[in-house]
Amino acid sequence: MKLTLFTDYSMRVLLYLAARPDRLSSIAEVAQAYGISQNHLMKVVNDLARSGYIESLRGRGGGIRLGRKPADINLGELVRHTEGGFDLVDCGSCVVAPACRLTGVLQEALCAFLSVLDRYSLADLAAEPGQLERIFGAVGTR
Amino acid sequence: MKLTLFTDYSMRVLLYLAARPDRLSSIAEVAQAYGISQNHLMKVVNDLARSGYIESLRGRGGGIRLGRKPADINLGELVRHTEGGFDLVDCGSCVVAPACRLTGVLQEALCAFLSVLDRYSLADLAAEPGQLERIFGAVGTR
Repeated sequence: MKLTLFTDYSMRVLLYLAARPDRLSSIAEVAQAYGISQNHLMKVVNDLARSGYIESLRGRGGGIRLGRKPADINLGELVRHTEGGFDLVDCGSCVVAPACRLTGVLQEALCAFLSVLDRYSLADLAAEPGQLERIFGAVGTR
Repeated sequence: MKLTLFTDYSMRVLLYLAARPDRLSSIAEVAQAYGISQNHLMKVVNDLARSGYIESLRGRGGGIRLGRKPADINLGELVRHTEGGFDLVDCGSCVVAPACRLTGVLQEALCAFLSVLDRYSLADLAAEPGQLERIFGAVGTR
């Protein structure tokens, strides 16, 4: 069982921005910090900007920063957004779907999963901003 | 977020066998019933046989059947087995892993997810064996 790469990268971007609250960041430096592709991040950043999780300032001296306080970015809400649908198994193609109770059971399990995430915010992940800042500093971002 | 195809197919095989308790089934007919590849099922069936979820009788007149009663096949235990590891996100490659609390949060959410599955057995999914039997009969298995 895996969360999508889209969710993974969304969390990474937000965590990076939370650790560097007093400045604008660039997609290039987030990509460099995590050693991941800038192209992959572009789509993620556009989505996060559209949905208000980050602010994107264009032009010379522009960049991205958090659009809300870390404490106001709830992880359950974020993951519901970035995952889109949660099709834990592909029942659509399954002949027994009408008579099978698995969908209901998985739905109940998923609710329990998300209820836990609902109790945490981005601020809980970046609980030691100094430490994250040191890590990002050490991987060569300005 | 998605369970692996291996888990999906394992559940389908067990559900099929649970619905046809008084006979031996073949991999070919399970594949036909669900419209999925026999090759993909082979690996799943071998694993289920190795782990005692099903019995495989070789030779002429052989076939597969459940190795335990449906009520004794716990879904939490099954999914822990078929999923192997649960790497919800790939923290191994992430530079902030040492300072990030996401792993712990996701672990807690996963525990809540599995706790729900722990309350159900295969018998709960195949709660109406007559209905499943009719569906499997209608898709042309003998």
